[in-house]
Amino acid sequence: MPVILITGGARSGKSRHAEVRARAVPGRPVYIATAGALDEEMTERIAKHRARRGSGWIEREEPLRLTQALIETDGGGARLVDCLTLWLSNLLHAGNDWPQAIAKLADTLKSQRSPVVLVTNEVGLGIVPDNALARAYRDAAGLMNQTIAGVADEVEFIVAGLPMKLK
Amino acid sequence: MPVILITGGARSGKSRHAEVRARAVPGRPVYIATAGALDEEMTERIAKHRARRGSGWIEREEPLRLTQALIETDGGGARLVDCLTLWLSNLLHAGNDWPQAIAKLADTLKSQRSPVVLVTNEVGLGIVPDNALARAYRDAAGLMNQTIAGVADEVEFIVAGLPMKLK
Amino acid sequence: MPVILITGGARSGKSRHAEVRARAVPGRPVYIATAGALDEEMTERIAKHRARRGSGWIEREEPLRLTQALIETDGGGARLVDCLTLWLSNLLHAGNDWPQAIAKLADTLKSQRSPVVLVTNEVGLGIVPDNALARAYRDAAGLMNQTIAGVADEVEFIVAGLPMKLK
Repeated sequence: MPVILITGGARSGKSRHAEVRARAVPGRPVYIATAGALDEEMTERIAKHRARRGSGWIEREEPLRLTQALIETDGGGARLVDCLTLWLSNLLHAGNDWPQAIAKLADTLKSQRSPVVLVTNEVGLGIVPDNALARAYRDAAGLMNQTIAGVADEVEFIVAGLPMKLK
Repeated sequence: MPVILITGGARSGKSRHAEVRARAVPGRPVYIATAGALDEEMTERIAKHRARRGSGWIEREEPLRLTQALIETDGGGARLVDCLTLWLSNLLHAGNDWPQAIAKLADTLKSQRSPVVLVTNEVGLGIVPDNALARAYRDAAGLMNQTIAGVADEVEFIVAGLPMKLK
Repeated sequence: MPVILITGGARSGKSRHAEVRARAVPGRPVYIATAGALDEEMTERIAKHRARRGSGWIEREEPLRLTQALIETDGGGARLVDCLTLWLSNLLHAGNDWPQAIAKLADTLKSQRSPVVLVTNEVGLGIVPDNALARAYRDAAGLMNQTIAGVADEVEFIVAGLPMKLK
Protein backbone atom coordinates (compact mmCIF):
# COMPACT_ATOMS: atom_id res chain seq x y z
CA MET A 1 0.00 0.00 0.00
CA PRO A 2 1.23 3.48 -0.75
CA VAL A 3 3.67 5.41 1.40
CA ILE A 4 3.19 9.15 0.83
CA LEU A 5 5.70 11.78 2.02
CA ILE A 6 4.48 15.39 2.34
CA THR A 7 7.28 17.91 2.77
CA GLY A 8 7.45 21.71 2.90
CA GLY A 9 8.20 24.71 5.08
CA ALA A 10 6.61 25.89 8.33
CA ARG A 11 2.90 26.76 7.94
CA SER A 12 2.86 25.76 4.33
CA GLY A 13 -0.30 23.69 4.65
CA LYS A 14 1.46 20.31 4.89
CA SER A 15 -0.70 18.88 7.70
CA ARG A 16 -3.97 19.93 6.08
CA HIS A 17 -2.91 18.38 2.78
CA ALA A 18 -1.75 15.20 4.52
CA GLU A 19 -5.12 14.92 6.29
CA VAL A 20 -6.93 15.10 2.96
CA ARG A 21 -4.71 12.34 1.58
CA ALA A 22 -5.22 10.11 4.66
CA ARG A 23 -9.01 10.59 4.71
CA ALA A 24 -9.24 9.59 1.03
CA VAL A 25 -8.39 6.02 2.07
CA PRO A 26 -11.26 3.72 3.21
CA GLY A 27 -11.21 2.82 6.91
CA ARG A 28 -10.82 4.84 10.08
CA PRO A 29 -7.61 6.89 9.88
CA VAL A 30 -5.02 6.81 12.65
CA TYR A 31 -3.31 10.04 13.68
CA ILE A 32 0.18 9.43 15.07
CA ALA A 33 1.46 12.59 16.74
CA THR A 34 5.18 12.77 17.44
CA ALA A 35 4.75 15.97 19.48
CA GLY A 36 4.20 16.07 23.19
CA ALA A 37 2.35 19.11 24.60
CA LEU A 38 5.54 20.41 26.19
CA ASP A 39 4.76 24.12 26.26
CA GLU A 40 1.93 26.56 25.66
CA GLU A 41 2.82 27.18 22.00
CA MET A 42 2.71 23.44 21.29
CA THR A 43 -0.44 22.80 23.33
CA GLU A 44 -2.28 25.48 21.38
CA ARG A 45 -1.06 24.11 18.08
CA ILE A 46 -2.08 20.53 18.91
CA ALA A 47 -5.56 21.75 19.90
CA LYS A 48 -5.92 23.66 16.61
CA HIS A 49 -4.87 20.66 14.52
CA ARG A 50 -7.30 18.44 16.44
CA ALA A 51 -10.19 20.86 15.95
CA ARG A 52 -9.50 21.00 12.21
CA ARG A 53 -9.21 17.22 11.81
CA GLY A 54 -12.55 16.69 13.54
CA SER A 55 -13.59 13.42 15.12
CA GLY A 56 -13.36 10.06 13.43
CA TRP A 57 -9.62 9.66 13.97
CA ILE A 58 -7.88 7.15 16.22
CA GLU A 59 -5.30 9.25 18.05
CA ARG A 60 -1.92 8.15 19.31
CA GLU A 61 1.08 9.99 20.69
CA GLU A 62 4.49 8.52 19.88
CA PRO A 63 7.42 10.87 20.46
CA LEU A 64 10.02 8.10 19.91
CA ARG A 65 8.61 4.64 19.12
CA LEU A 66 7.22 5.56 15.71
CA THR A 67 8.24 2.39 13.86
CA GLN A 68 6.64 0.25 16.56
CA ALA A 69 3.45 2.34 16.33
CA LEU A 70 3.25 1.75 12.56
CA ILE A 71 3.66 -2.01 13.03
CA GLU A 72 0.97 -2.08 15.73
CA THR A 73 -1.58 -0.04 13.74
CA ASP A 74 -1.08 -1.84 10.41
CA GLY A 75 -4.04 -3.54 8.79
CA GLY A 76 -6.73 -0.84 9.25
CA GLY A 77 -7.12 2.67 7.78
CA ALA A 78 -4.34 5.02 6.77
CA ARG A 79 -1.83 6.24 9.32
CA LEU A 80 -0.92 9.93 9.32
CA VAL A 81 2.45 10.66 10.96
CA ASP A 82 2.79 14.33 11.95
CA CYS A 83 5.70 14.93 11.84
CA LEU A 84 9.05 13.27 11.11
CA THR A 85 11.21 16.31 11.92
CA LEU A 86 9.80 16.45 15.45
CA TRP A 87 10.39 12.72 15.83
CA LEU A 88 14.01 13.25 14.74
CA SER A 89 14.34 16.10 17.22
CA ASN A 90 13.02 13.79 19.98
CA LEU A 91 15.52 11.08 18.99
CA LEU A 92 18.40 13.55 19.12
CA HIS A 93 17.36 14.92 22.52
CA ALA A 94 17.00 11.40 23.91
CA GLY A 95 20.50 10.55 22.65
CA ASN A 96 19.14 7.68 20.53
CA ASP A 97 20.92 6.22 17.49
CA TRP A 98 19.01 8.27 14.92
CA PRO A 99 20.65 6.92 11.73
CA GLN A 100 19.64 3.41 12.83
CA ALA A 101 16.12 4.57 13.76
CA ILE A 102 15.68 6.16 10.30
CA ALA A 103 16.97 3.03 8.55
CA LYS A 104 14.55 0.89 10.57
CA LEU A 105 11.63 3.21 9.77
CA ALA A 106 12.48 3.10 6.05
CA ASP A 107 12.66 -0.66 6.18
CA THR A 108 9.31 -0.98 7.97
CA LEU A 109 7.61 1.40 5.53
CA LYS A 110 8.44 -0.93 2.63
CA SER A 111 6.29 -3.73 4.07
CA GLN A 112 3.22 -1.94 5.49
CA ARG A 113 -0.16 -3.23 4.33
CA SER A 114 -2.17 -0.07 5.17
CA PRO A 115 -1.20 3.29 3.68
CA VAL A 116 1.08 5.69 5.55
CA VAL A 117 1.12 9.45 5.02
CA LEU A 118 4.16 11.12 6.60
CA VAL A 119 4.61 14.86 7.15
CA THR A 120 8.11 16.33 7.31
CA ASN A 121 9.77 19.76 7.12
CA GLU A 122 12.36 21.26 4.83
CA VAL A 123 14.78 23.06 7.16
CA GLY A 124 17.89 23.39 4.97
CA LEU A 125 17.01 26.31 2.69
CA GLY A 126 18.07 29.17 4.95
CA ILE A 127 21.44 30.59 5.95
CA VAL A 128 23.87 28.09 7.59
CA PRO A 129 23.04 28.24 11.33
CA ASP A 130 25.68 29.65 13.69
CA ASN A 131 25.54 26.86 16.23
CA ALA A 132 26.82 23.33 15.62
CA LEU A 133 23.74 21.62 17.11
CA ALA A 134 21.39 23.35 14.68
CA ARG A 135 23.73 22.43 11.81
CA ALA A 136 23.79 18.80 12.93
CA TYR A 137 20.00 18.80 13.17
CA ARG A 138 19.43 20.22 9.71
CA ASP A 139 21.95 17.76 8.27
CA ALA A 140 20.15 14.88 9.95
CA ALA A 141 16.77 16.16 8.76
CA GLY A 142 18.03 16.42 5.18
CA LEU A 143 19.39 12.88 5.25
CA MET A 144 16.16 11.58 6.82
CA ASN A 145 14.04 13.26 4.14
CA GLN A 146 16.19 11.78 1.38
CA THR A 147 15.96 8.29 2.90
CA ILE A 148 12.19 8.34 3.44
CA ALA A 149 11.60 9.94 0.02
CA GLY A 150 13.66 7.09 -1.42
CA VAL A 151 11.24 4.42 -0.11
CA ALA A 152 8.04 6.47 -0.59
CA ASP A 153 5.71 5.81 -3.51
CA GLU A 154 4.69 9.46 -3.69
CA VAL A 155 6.42 12.65 -2.54
CA GLU A 156 4.78 16.07 -2.58
CA PHE A 157 6.43 19.41 -1.80
CA ILE A 158 3.95 22.00 -0.49
CA VAL A 159 4.42 25.75 -0.98
CA ALA A 160 1.68 28.21 0.05
CA GLY A 161 -0.78 25.34 0.46
CA LEU A 162 -0.19 24.05 -3.07
CA PRO A 163 1.45 20.70 -3.83
CA MET A 164 4.24 20.04 -6.33
CA LYS A 165 4.65 16.40 -7.26
CA LEU A 166 8.26 15.24 -6.80
CA LYS A 167 7.64 11.51 -7.17
CA MET B 1 -9.33 39.92 -13.69
CA PRO B 2 -6.46 37.73 -12.67
CA VAL B 3 -4.80 37.81 -9.27
CA ILE B 4 -1.23 36.51 -9.56
CA LEU B 5 0.90 35.59 -6.54
CA ILE B 6 4.68 35.41 -7.01
CA THR B 7 6.50 33.74 -4.14
CA GLY B 8 10.11 32.68 -3.51
CA GLY B 9 13.20 33.31 -1.43
CA ALA B 10 15.30 36.44 -0.97
CA ARG B 11 16.95 37.63 -4.21
CA SER B 12 15.32 34.89 -6.22
CA GLY B 13 14.16 37.25 -8.96
CA LYS B 14 10.57 37.58 -7.70
CA SER B 15 10.25 41.34 -8.24
CA ARG B 16 11.72 41.24 -11.72
CA HIS B 17 9.37 38.43 -12.71
CA ALA B 18 6.39 40.23 -11.17
CA GLU B 19 7.26 43.39 -13.16
CA VAL B 20 7.24 41.39 -16.39
CA ARG B 21 3.82 39.99 -15.52
CA ALA B 22 2.41 43.42 -14.60
CA ARG B 23 3.76 45.12 -17.74
CA ALA B 24 2.18 42.43 -19.94
CA VAL B 25 -1.23 43.91 -19.08
CA PRO B 26 -2.53 46.87 -21.16
CA GLY B 27 -2.72 50.17 -19.30
CA ARG B 28 -0.27 52.07 -17.12
CA PRO B 29 0.89 49.80 -14.28
CA VAL B 30 0.72 50.91 -10.65
CA TYR B 31 3.56 50.07 -8.32
CA ILE B 32 2.42 49.75 -4.69
CA ALA B 33 5.45 49.63 -2.40
CA THR B 34 4.86 48.40 1.14
CA ALA B 35 8.39 49.40 2.17
CA GLY B 36 9.35 52.72 3.62
CA ALA B 37 12.94 53.90 3.12
CA LEU B 38 13.75 53.35 6.80
CA ASP B 39 17.46 52.72 6.56
CA GLU B 40 20.35 52.87 4.12
CA GLU B 41 20.04 49.22 3.04
CA MET B 42 16.36 49.73 2.18
CA THR B 43 16.89 53.13 0.51
CA GLU B 44 19.51 51.61 -1.76
CA ARG B 45 17.28 48.66 -2.60
CA ILE B 46 14.29 50.86 -3.42
CA ALA B 47 16.47 52.98 -5.72
CA LYS B 48 17.73 49.87 -7.53
CA HIS B 49 14.23 48.48 -8.04
CA ARG B 50 13.05 51.86 -9.36
CA ALA B 51 15.97 52.12 -11.79
CA ARG B 52 15.21 48.65 -13.14
CA ARG B 53 11.48 49.27 -13.51
CA GLY B 54 12.09 52.42 -15.48
CA SER B 55 9.52 55.15 -15.92
CA GLY B 56 5.94 54.60 -16.96
CA TRP B 57 4.77 53.39 -13.56
CA ILE B 58 2.39 55.13 -11.20
CA GLU B 59 4.12 54.85 -7.82
CA ARG B 60 2.50 54.61 -4.44
CA GLU B 61 3.80 53.83 -0.97
CA GLU B 62 1.44 51.95 1.35
CA PRO B 63 3.07 50.38 4.39
CA LEU B 64 -0.28 49.48 6.02
CA ARG B 65 -3.40 50.45 4.03
CA LEU B 66 -2.83 48.01 1.17
CA THR B 67 -6.43 46.88 0.74
CA GLN B 68 -7.59 50.50 0.55
CA ALA B 69 -4.89 51.23 -2.04
CA LEU B 70 -6.11 48.36 -4.22
CA ILE B 71 -9.69 49.61 -4.05
CA GLU B 72 -8.61 53.15 -4.93
CA THR B 73 -6.45 52.13 -7.91
CA ASP B 74 -8.90 49.63 -9.40
CA GLY B 75 -10.11 50.17 -12.96
CA GLY B 76 -6.82 51.06 -14.69
CA GLY B 77 -3.67 49.03 -15.40
CA ALA B 78 -2.25 46.19 -13.32
CA ARG B 79 -1.22 46.79 -9.74
CA LEU B 80 2.08 45.32 -8.57
CA VAL B 81 2.28 44.90 -4.78
CA ASP B 82 5.88 44.51 -3.57
CA CYS B 83 5.74 42.87 -1.10
CA LEU B 84 3.23 41.16 1.17
CA THR B 85 5.76 39.95 3.76
CA LEU B 86 6.89 43.51 4.41
CA TRP B 87 3.25 44.61 4.71
CA LEU B 88 2.71 41.82 7.26
CA SER B 89 5.80 42.93 9.15
CA ASN B 90 4.44 46.51 9.21
CA LEU B 91 1.06 45.26 10.53
CA LEU B 92 2.76 43.30 13.30
CA HIS B 93 4.96 46.24 14.33
CA ALA B 94 1.95 48.56 14.37
CA GLY B 95 0.06 46.10 16.58
CA ASN B 96 -2.75 45.78 14.00
CA ASP B 97 -5.12 42.83 13.78
CA TRP B 98 -3.19 40.99 11.06
CA PRO B 99 -5.46 37.95 10.65
CA GLN B 100 -8.36 40.33 9.97
CA ALA B 101 -6.25 42.45 7.61
CA ILE B 102 -5.28 39.34 5.61
CA ALA B 103 -8.90 38.14 5.45
CA LYS B 104 -9.97 41.57 4.22
CA LEU B 105 -7.23 41.65 1.58
CA ALA B 106 -8.22 38.16 0.36
CA ASP B 107 -11.83 39.25 0.16
CA THR B 108 -11.00 42.41 -1.77
CA LEU B 109 -8.79 40.52 -4.23
CA LYS B 110 -11.74 38.37 -5.28
CA SER B 111 -13.62 41.36 -6.65
CA GLN B 112 -10.94 43.51 -8.33
CA ARG B 113 -11.57 44.52 -11.94
CA SER B 114 -7.93 45.27 -12.86
CA PRO B 115 -5.23 42.62 -12.44
CA VAL B 116 -3.15 42.43 -9.28
CA VAL B 117 0.34 40.91 -9.11
CA LEU B 118 1.49 40.31 -5.53
CA VAL B 119 5.05 39.51 -4.47
CA THR B 120 5.64 37.57 -1.25
CA ASN B 121 8.48 35.66 0.43
CA GLU B 122 8.87 32.09 1.59
CA VAL B 123 10.45 32.38 5.06
CA GLY B 124 9.62 28.98 6.58
CA LEU B 125 12.18 26.67 4.96
CA GLY B 126 15.08 27.24 7.34
CA ILE B 127 15.82 26.11 10.89
CA VAL B 128 13.17 27.03 13.52
CA PRO B 129 14.22 30.49 14.77
CA ASP B 130 15.39 30.82 18.39
CA ASN B 131 13.23 33.77 19.29
CA ALA B 132 9.46 33.64 19.68
CA LEU B 133 8.82 36.83 17.67
CA ALA B 134 10.57 35.44 14.60
CA ARG B 135 8.61 32.19 14.98
CA ALA B 136 5.34 34.11 15.23
CA TYR B 137 6.27 36.12 12.14
CA ARG B 138 7.12 33.10 10.02
CA ASP B 139 3.90 31.37 11.13
CA ALA B 140 1.90 34.46 10.17
CA ALA B 141 3.70 34.72 6.82
CA GLY B 142 2.99 31.06 6.05
CA LEU B 143 -0.71 31.48 6.86
CA MET B 144 -0.90 34.68 4.79
CA ASN B 145 0.72 32.98 1.79
CA GLN B 146 -1.72 30.05 2.01
CA THR B 147 -4.69 32.44 2.24
CA ILE B 148 -3.64 34.65 -0.67
CA ALA B 149 -2.63 31.63 -2.78
CA GLY B 150 -6.11 30.26 -2.09
CA VAL B 151 -7.83 33.24 -3.75
CA ALA B 152 -5.20 33.77 -6.48
CA ASP B 153 -5.82 32.65 -10.05
CA GLU B 154 -2.13 31.95 -10.62
CA VAL B 155 0.70 31.19 -8.19
CA GLU B 156 4.34 30.98 -9.23
CA PHE B 157 7.28 29.89 -7.07
CA ILE B 158 10.57 31.43 -8.21
CA VAL B 159 13.95 29.74 -7.67
CA ALA B 160 17.14 31.20 -9.17
CA GLY B 161 15.06 33.52 -11.35
CA LEU B 162 13.03 30.66 -12.84
CA PRO B 163 9.30 30.20 -12.19
CA MET B 164 7.55 26.98 -11.20
CA LYS B 165 3.80 27.05 -11.73
CA LEU B 166 1.94 26.03 -8.56
CA LYS B 167 -1.54 27.08 -9.71
CA MET C 1 28.35 21.69 -24.40
CA PRO C 2 25.76 21.81 -21.67
CA VAL C 3 26.09 23.81 -18.48
CA ILE C 4 23.95 22.23 -15.74
CA LEU C 5 23.13 24.00 -12.47
CA ILE C 6 21.98 21.86 -9.53
CA THR C 7 20.48 23.87 -6.67
CA GLY C 8 18.74 22.98 -3.41
CA GLY C 9 19.00 23.07 0.37
CA ALA C 10 21.55 21.57 2.72
CA ARG C 11 21.72 17.75 2.57
CA SER C 12 19.11 17.62 -0.15
CA GLY C 13 21.12 15.21 -2.30
CA LYS C 14 22.53 17.87 -4.66
CA SER C 15 26.09 16.52 -4.81
CA ARG C 16 24.99 12.95 -5.37
CA HIS C 17 22.68 14.02 -8.18
CA ALA C 18 25.40 16.21 -9.71
CA GLU C 19 27.83 13.27 -9.67
CA VAL C 20 25.34 11.13 -11.58
CA ARG C 21 24.97 13.89 -14.17
CA ALA C 22 28.75 14.36 -14.53
CA ARG C 23 29.46 10.62 -14.82
CA ALA C 24 26.87 10.30 -17.59
CA VAL C 25 29.24 12.21 -19.88
CA PRO C 26 31.98 10.27 -21.75
CA GLY C 27 35.53 10.97 -20.59
CA ARG C 28 37.17 11.10 -17.17
CA PRO C 29 35.26 13.56 -14.97
CA VAL C 30 37.04 16.35 -13.10
CA TYR C 31 35.97 17.18 -9.57
CA ILE C 32 36.63 20.84 -8.69
CA ALA C 33 36.22 21.34 -4.95
CA THR C 34 35.87 24.92 -3.75
CA ALA C 35 36.17 23.82 -0.11
CA GLY C 36 39.40 23.61 1.80
CA ALA C 37 39.61 21.18 4.71
CA LEU C 38 39.59 24.02 7.23
CA ASP C 39 38.08 22.24 10.20
CA GLU C 40 37.08 18.78 11.40
CA GLU C 41 33.47 19.07 10.20
CA MET C 42 34.65 19.93 6.69
CA THR C 43 37.46 17.35 6.62
CA GLU C 44 34.98 14.62 7.50
CA ARG C 45 32.53 15.81 4.88
CA ILE C 46 35.16 15.93 2.13
CA ALA C 47 36.25 12.38 3.02
CA LYS C 48 32.63 11.15 2.82
CA HIS C 49 32.04 12.78 -0.55
CA ARG C 50 35.29 11.29 -1.89
CA ALA C 51 34.41 7.79 -0.65
CA ARG C 52 31.01 8.00 -2.35
CA ARG C 53 32.41 9.29 -5.65
CA GLY C 54 34.92 6.46 -5.82
CA SER C 55 38.05 6.57 -7.94
CA GLY C 56 38.13 7.57 -11.58
CA TRP C 57 37.91 11.31 -10.92
CA ILE C 58 40.58 13.90 -11.52
CA GLU C 59 40.53 15.98 -8.34
CA ARG C 60 41.32 19.65 -7.97
CA GLU C 61 40.90 22.13 -5.15
CA GLU C 62 40.10 25.72 -6.14
CA PRO C 63 38.79 27.92 -3.35
CA LEU C 64 39.01 31.11 -5.45
CA ARG C 65 40.31 30.66 -9.01
CA LEU C 66 37.32 28.70 -10.28
CA THR C 67 37.02 30.37 -13.68
CA GLN C 68 40.70 29.74 -14.38
CA ALA C 69 40.27 26.09 -13.35
CA LEU C 70 37.41 25.66 -15.83
CA ILE C 71 39.49 27.16 -18.64
CA GLU C 72 42.44 24.90 -17.81
CA THR C 73 40.39 21.70 -17.62
CA ASP C 74 38.32 22.31 -20.74
CA GLY C 75 38.44 19.77 -23.57
CA GLY C 76 38.20 16.52 -21.59
CA GLY C 77 35.39 15.01 -19.49
CA ALA C 78 32.73 16.87 -17.53
CA ARG C 79 33.73 19.19 -14.71
CA LEU C 80 31.76 19.02 -11.47
CA VAL C 81 32.03 22.20 -9.37
CA ASP C 82 31.02 21.60 -5.73
CA CYS C 83 29.96 24.19 -4.74
CA LEU C 84 29.32 27.76 -5.89
CA THR C 85 28.06 29.06 -2.52
CA LEU C 86 31.32 28.07 -0.83
CA TRP C 87 33.28 29.73 -3.64
CA LEU C 88 31.24 32.90 -3.08
CA SER C 89 31.91 32.69 0.63
CA ASN C 90 35.65 32.38 -0.10
CA LEU C 91 35.50 35.43 -2.41
CA LEU C 92 33.76 37.50 0.26
CA HIS C 93 36.25 36.49 2.97
CA ALA C 94 39.18 37.29 0.69
CA GLY C 95 37.69 40.72 -0.02
CA ASN C 96 37.56 39.99 -3.77
CA ASP C 97 35.27 41.77 -6.24
CA TRP C 98 32.57 39.09 -6.20
CA PRO C 99 30.13 40.69 -8.69
CA GLN C 100 32.95 40.83 -11.23
CA ALA C 101 34.02 37.25 -10.44
CA ILE C 102 30.46 36.00 -10.98
CA ALA C 103 30.13 37.93 -14.26
CA LYS C 104 33.44 36.45 -15.45
CA LEU C 105 32.36 32.93 -14.49
CA ALA C 106 29.04 33.36 -16.33
CA ASP C 107 30.90 34.59 -19.38
CA THR C 108 33.35 31.69 -19.35
CA LEU C 109 30.56 29.13 -18.94
CA LYS C 110 29.03 30.26 -22.22
CA SER C 111 32.06 29.17 -24.22
CA GLN C 112 33.16 25.88 -22.58
CA ARG C 113 33.59 22.91 -24.88
CA SER C 114 33.28 20.19 -22.20
CA PRO C 115 30.19 20.01 -19.97
CA VAL C 116 30.11 21.71 -16.59
CA VAL C 117 27.86 20.62 -13.71
CA LEU C 118 27.68 23.23 -10.93
CA VAL C 119 26.27 22.66 -7.45
CA THR C 120 24.88 25.61 -5.48
CA ASN C 121 22.71 26.20 -2.41
CA GLU C 122 19.42 27.99 -1.87
CA VAL C 123 19.97 30.04 1.29
CA GLY C 124 17.22 32.67 1.03
CA LEU C 125 14.10 30.77 2.11
CA GLY C 126 14.40 31.21 5.87
CA ILE C 127 13.80 34.14 8.20
CA VAL C 128 15.79 37.34 7.42
CA PRO C 129 19.09 36.91 9.33
CA ASP C 130 19.80 39.28 12.23
CA ASN C 131 23.29 40.22 11.19
CA ALA C 132 24.15 42.37 8.19
CA LEU C 133 26.95 40.10 6.96
CA ALA C 134 24.63 37.09 6.70
CA ARG C 135 22.08 39.26 4.87
CA ALA C 136 24.73 40.47 2.44
CA TYR C 137 25.85 36.89 1.85
CA ARG C 138 22.38 35.57 1.12
CA ASP C 139 21.71 38.50 -1.20
CA ALA C 140 24.95 37.78 -3.07
CA ALA C 141 24.12 34.06 -3.24
CA GLY C 142 20.67 34.79 -4.65
CA LEU C 143 22.09 37.09 -7.31
CA MET C 144 24.80 34.56 -8.19
CA ASN C 145 22.23 31.78 -8.57
CA GLN C 146 20.08 33.94 -10.84
CA THR C 147 23.09 34.85 -12.99
CA ILE C 148 24.41 31.32 -13.37
CA ALA C 149 20.89 29.93 -13.93
CA GLY C 150 20.55 32.55 -16.67
CA VAL C 151 23.48 31.13 -18.67
CA ALA C 152 22.85 27.47 -17.80
CA ASP C 153 21.26 25.10 -20.31
CA GLU C 154 19.61 23.08 -17.55
CA VAL C 155 18.67 23.96 -13.98
CA GLU C 156 17.40 21.42 -11.45
CA PHE C 157 16.09 22.15 -7.95
CA ILE C 158 16.56 19.19 -5.60
CA VAL C 159 14.25 18.52 -2.63
CA ALA C 160 14.60 15.33 -0.55
CA GLY C 161 16.90 13.84 -3.18
CA LEU C 162 14.36 14.38 -5.98
CA PRO C 163 14.94 16.82 -8.87
CA MET C 164 12.47 19.38 -10.19
CA LYS C 165 13.32 20.69 -13.64
CA LEU C 166 13.39 24.51 -13.69
CA LYS C 167 15.00 24.93 -17.11
